[in-house]
Amino acid sequence: MSTQLQELSQQFEARFRQLVPFEQEPRNLYEPCAYLLQLGGKRIRPVLCLMAAQAFDAAQEDAYHIAAAIELFHNFTLIHDDIMDKAPLRRGFATVHAKYGLPTGILSGDVMFIYAYQLLVKNKQQPLALVELFNKTAIEVCEGQQWDMDFENREDVSIEAYLEMIRLKTSVLLAASLQMGAMVGSATKEQASSLYHFGIQLGLAFQLQDDYLDAFGEVAKLGKQKGGDIQANKKTYLLLKAIALGNEEQKNQIQQLLNSNAEDKVMQMLSLFEATKAKEACKELIQQYTQAAFDSLDRLSIDASKKESFIQITNYLLNREH
Amino acid sequence: MSTQLQELSQQFEARFRQLVPFEQEPRNLYEPCAYLLQLGGKRIRPVLCLMAAQAFDAAQEDAYHIAAAIELFHNFTLIHDDIMDKAPLRRGFATVHAKYGLPTGILSGDVMFIYAYQLLVKNKQQPLALVELFNKTAIEVCEGQQWDMDFENREDVSIEAYLEMIRLKTSVLLAASLQMGAMVGSATKEQASSLYHFGIQLGLAFQLQDDYLDAFGEVAKLGKQKGGDIQANKKTYLLLKAIALGNEEQKNQIQQLLNSNAEDKVMQMLSLFEATKAKEACKELIQQYTQAAFDSLDRLSIDASKKESFIQITNYLLNREH
Repeated sequence: MSTQLQELSQQFEARFRQLVPFEQEPRNLYEPCAYLLQLGGKRIRPVLCLMAAQAFDAAQEDAYHIAAAIELFHNFTLIHDDIMDKAPLRRGFATVHAKYGLPTGILSGDVMFIYAYQLLVKNKQQPLALVELFNKTAIEVCEGQQWDMDFENREDVSIEAYLEMIRLKTSVLLAASLQMGAMVGSATKEQASSLYHFGIQLGLAFQLQDDYLDAFGEVAKLGKQKGGDIQANKKTYLLLKAIALGNEEQKNQIQQLLNSNAEDKVMQMLSLFEATKAKEACKELIQQYTQAAFDSLDRLSIDASKKESFIQITNYLLNREH
Repeated sequence: MSTQLQELSQQFEARFRQLVPFEQEPRNLYEPCAYLLQLGGKRIRPVLCLMAAQAFDAAQEDAYHIAAAIELFHNFTLIHDDIMDKAPLRRGFATVHAKYGLPTGILSGDVMFIYAYQLLVKNKQQPLALVELFNKTAIEVCEGQQWDMDFENREDVSIEAYLEMIRLKTSVLLAASLQMGAMVGSATKEQASSLYHFGIQLGLAFQLQDDYLDAFGEVAKLGKQKGGDIQANKKTYLLLKAIALGNEEQKNQIQQLLNSNAEDKVMQMLSLFEATKAKEACKELIQQYTQAAFDSLDRLSIDASKKESFIQITNYLLNREH
């Protein structure tokens, strides 16, 4: 992370802890919320929101409220997604439901979500428009999660449907973070909308990058296993593209691997991703979305100096090694 | 139900189906929502909201949006509560998670909750105040649910804590339904607040009545078993009061029964509720809250003719046999 990004992230962190301490009763409801929040994370969404707010000279306090609302929403989805995915670990630590039980996981997620709305309406400038965008985004994130779960049990997932799923599950929240930050500032509708589109492209590139790194990246530091998606038979872009590009023999090999628990399953699948040129196609698509993100920034009618932070965070997010 | 109540309920039902058809994709997300909603229910909360709106001459369409938002929120809590309580049946039919699986139950509940907010901000009059009351209420309902779960594992639940729990879990939503209806009409703050307090008393009486009927009522029509709370060792007012009022021998008998699965457990516990005068105390407390509800109505400064529907619904809710 660049110094500026780090600073924004740290400033947010400090204010976030004041805005949502979750120290009240009932402890069994709020302690799990506090637990998850103190596990940290990169706080990418609030940082994007604060950047957009700064670019349009928003009042800092307004921006913090929105940024905190977005981060709470994101953490709410993490709690519930981890239950749905039966995930034992999050950021290297026990997930909320693993630590506190399923009922608490559901309820703590729910209450965290309501606190997001509570922060959102602290903004008195254009609360309605903010809540409307927030609602639309939250609905889309749920729909993305449902498609993701649906795809697990489907054999006929198209690449188009997969990309739409990651747009819903990942991109729209990054995009809305930017747009909401711009909205509490002085942005015109057109400027806010340009930032939204920048966020969509950034999100698509980011998620594809995630897929790519899971297969070909360095082993992640925080407990993720290389090839985890392959072991879980996840329908990633790499897999779908390998099936689409592969010849009959390669397709058969992929199908056999999907039904196998062989020790070298990950290695073999990686070879197939390379042989079918799915790996290359994935890199190219990441590049295309990255370029589209920069194009959106180019079209954004603000001072070039104010675009610097958006360029920095794009480079930071898309040049990760894990 | 009186004819007026029935009419309001039916009018709401028709409009509700238009406002939230839940016919869109992804079907696996929205079909469970539609399924639960078509199971029906008495729609008490939206009816209270519409009554309050009528009493203060609110625009009908505004009132429907709020009433529908409240009913969606209520149904969201039902889906998630049923998961937490591992309940197989709701209104005599399979619960959402039992029918569609746990992940879908969580996610369909989540999305339903967001649609509640979406309806809420369709009201352009005082959306902020409405969302703020809605947030506060939703947080309290979660807190009530958490206390309820906490109490299951605690031996030291005071009657005061129990009453506070049912205030949070049940009363505040009835109260907020009334207040929000009044707010979209022409109610003053004082009038809206009087209605809120009426709703709190009504809710407390209603929930205690529920406890009472579970033990001493006719067998319910919709799948509930008489003495279900006793069989589940639920810490109801009756149980807590019996322990508080009983002599040493009676207390010991209660403790033994709590640890027993005897066939006549329900019968024996009912005898103890009578012998300790907990039954009588429960009836008295219901009567007190009912009186307090009517007192709140008396203090409400509107035409007597406009109070008629509130009196009717109180009588309807508190003179149930099951």
